Amino acid sequence: MTSAQDHPQAGAQGKSPETGPITISLDAMGGDHGPAAVLAGAARAASRNAQLRLLIHGDTAALEPLMTQHADLASRVTLRHADRAVTMEDKPSQVMRHGKDTSMWSTIAALREGDAQAAVSCGNTGALMAVSMLQLRRMEGVSRPGIACLWPARGKHGFNIMLDVGADLKADAPDLLAYAIMGATYFRNGFNEPIPRVGLLNVGTEDHKGRAEIRAAHELIANCQETGRYEYVGFVEGNDIPAEHVDVVVTDGFTGNVALKTGEGTARLIGDFLREALRSNLIAGLGALLASRSIEKLRQRIDPRRVNGGVFLGLNGTVVKSHGSADETGVAAAIDLAAKLAQSGYRGRMAERLVIAAQAAQDAGKEGAAG
Amino acid sequence: MTSAQDHPQAGAQGKSPETGPITISLDAMGGDHGPAAVLAGAARAASRNAQLRLLIHGDTAALEPLMTQHADLASRVTLRHADRAVTMEDKPSQVMRHGKDTSMWSTIAALREGDAQAAVSCGNTGALMAVSMLQLRRMEGVSRPGIACLWPARGKHGFNIMLDVGADLKADAPDLLAYAIMGATYFRNGFNEPIPRVGLLNVGTEDHKGRAEIRAAHELIANCQETGRYEYVGFVEGNDIPAEHVDVVVTDGFTGNVALKTGEGTARLIGDFLREALRSNLIAGLGALLASRSIEKLRQRIDPRRVNGGVFLGLNGTVVKSHGSADETGVAAAIDLAAKLAQSGYRGRMAERLVIAAQAAQDAGKEGAAG
Repeated sequence: MTSAQDHPQAGAQGKSPETGPITISLDAMGGDHGPAAVLAGAARAASRNAQLRLLIHGDTAALEPLMTQHADLASRVTLRHADRAVTMEDKPSQVMRHGKDTSMWSTIAALREGDAQAAVSCGNTGALMAVSMLQLRRMEGVSRPGIACLWPARGKHGFNIMLDVGADLKADAPDLLAYAIMGATYFRNGFNEPIPRVGLLNVGTEDHKGRAEIRAAHELIANCQETGRYEYVGFVEGNDIPAEHVDVVVTDGFTGNVALKTGEGTARLIGDFLREALRSNLIAGLGALLASRSIEKLRQRIDPRRVNGGVFLGLNGTVVKSHGSADETGVAAAIDLAAKLAQSGYRGRMAERLVIAAQAAQDAGKEGAAG
Repeated sequence: MTSAQDHPQAGAQGKSPETGPITISLDAMGGDHGPAAVLAGAARAASRNAQLRLLIHGDTAALEPLMTQHADLASRVTLRHADRAVTMEDKPSQVMRHGKDTSMWSTIAALREGDAQAAVSCGNTGALMAVSMLQLRRMEGVSRPGIACLWPARGKHGFNIMLDVGADLKADAPDLLAYAIMGATYFRNGFNEPIPRVGLLNVGTEDHKGRAEIRAAHELIANCQETGRYEYVGFVEGNDIPAEHVDVVVTDGFTGNVALKTGEGTARLIGDFLREALRSNLIAGLGALLASRSIEKLRQRIDPRRVNGGVFLGLNGTVVKSHGSADETGVAAAIDLAAKLAQSGYRGRMAERLVIAAQAAQDAGKEGAAG
């Protein structure tokens, strides 16, 4: 299915993944702003990283004219044609059965076939997860893969991570344990933090709070600290997601998705209110002008587009899901993240830990049933 | 149990509740900052509202010395002794069985007995809901009462409301319908908006998204627009909670609680980042000084303490739950809200609508089972 022509960088890849070229398989279709925004984001990411190569999937009749605006990119991009694009309305089950001619399918296929080291798509999350699961398969010990997002935070790394933020709508206790292990591995490798601190999202920090599956996960996660190489800090609440005492916040995909979008919405609301307030009179406007560099720095620190990109964890391959509404900045951030992860080799010993933990969860379940 | 001495204002109450004195039953114990913060908040609320009377419950040995700092309040406050306080660790079921001597119990009992028109507590939410349900009873047609919070928003009223934010951990479709009706009634009366717009919180806006109970609620809420006197705008996402196209956001108590705290945490994080950014250099500092009045206005607009106070909906009585961590400002805001609601008579026709809607939900359930 692929040829050297399709992927001219493959042969040139060096032995050291940290310094050699890295190829990202990129879905140009399916984002709210269309392929132009995706290509602009690709160009921006490429301008920041000389090692980056891109294998871009979509309707070449639409992509080729757009590529003329990025002439400097030509030598680093390979286009691969796909007849169709997955829409936001498509059901994952339909795409799984009838989606082989879509750009999303092709994007993940290139990863499976080794033509790229990581994949990025702005498309329909459910479909992307379904297609990724089908082609890449789940890692052993994982029944529900998760999507992890970065969250601007108070700690020394500037970010916490949270998962799941929308791969699945539900999670039982063993799933939440797997999220703890996967999240800790991602954070350890992404931020050089040997023992990340894991918290479980709940409506209170007392032991008796929350739904039954959350209380069961509370015990499981506490008991697997050694295996997972994390420190468990117990229940955390919504206001703790950016807290200094936690690195990895674990929750089910429904709650995590609502929390993520609520945080983004709040940040945008406050940004707009701030702009309004500073324009409300001349003196405030002058003050804003003087403080503009600092305010811009703040804006960058909390801009959801700059921390854009959810990482699919628990699959045999690195897939980054960008927001559907991501613009050039957001797409570039997602590509940056994919490249960084592919080079870090974060999936190293995660597989082994997941198998041990899954066994522990199963044993605990049996004990619970017997007791 | 009560006497004229206990409640000297009762006889003085005028015919018009909007202008006459209003008595709030206030639990002084159980907040994170202790009774001193609660009394300070009471004093602040009283200084803003000449009609306000307070019936304050707690350990009089602790309260009386504190009251000497609020001498001007003496004529408007009645203390009622309670031996114990409910703690954040107490389980609701324990408080229901063994909590008759607590300040929380006494606070709600005064409301039930007509000694006050609304009640406020900063204590343990679960226990407060349990004690309120036991003493005040649910309204007909309500199986799960909800807690509604105010959310700073873009619309003309400056606020949206969201419920449930923590009364119950679960909600099935008929519960979500009841939240829609109760939320719309609260918004209609609180903001003079004849037909509030209701949205259902989900992880996407397409019809097929979300868990089964949410998709069932989607239909129920759409079908009860006339009965409930609201306009249903469909699914909304986390970033829509402060949106202009919705007034009332409906969700289960687990998700709502996480979203509320996530929004508060994000607002606090950005506030702290802003302060840091403005102090980072001299020019920014000068700019901040010039813009300080506008920035302060913004801070007030988004300060979670100023919008503090969740309203319990679906009970035969008005109970406002303040944050456990509420300080003087937060307690005062909760008392303001309780007074405003008690005077608005918002529970008017809500009861009738709930009964009609509960019947509709039941019929839909039967049809669903038959079809």
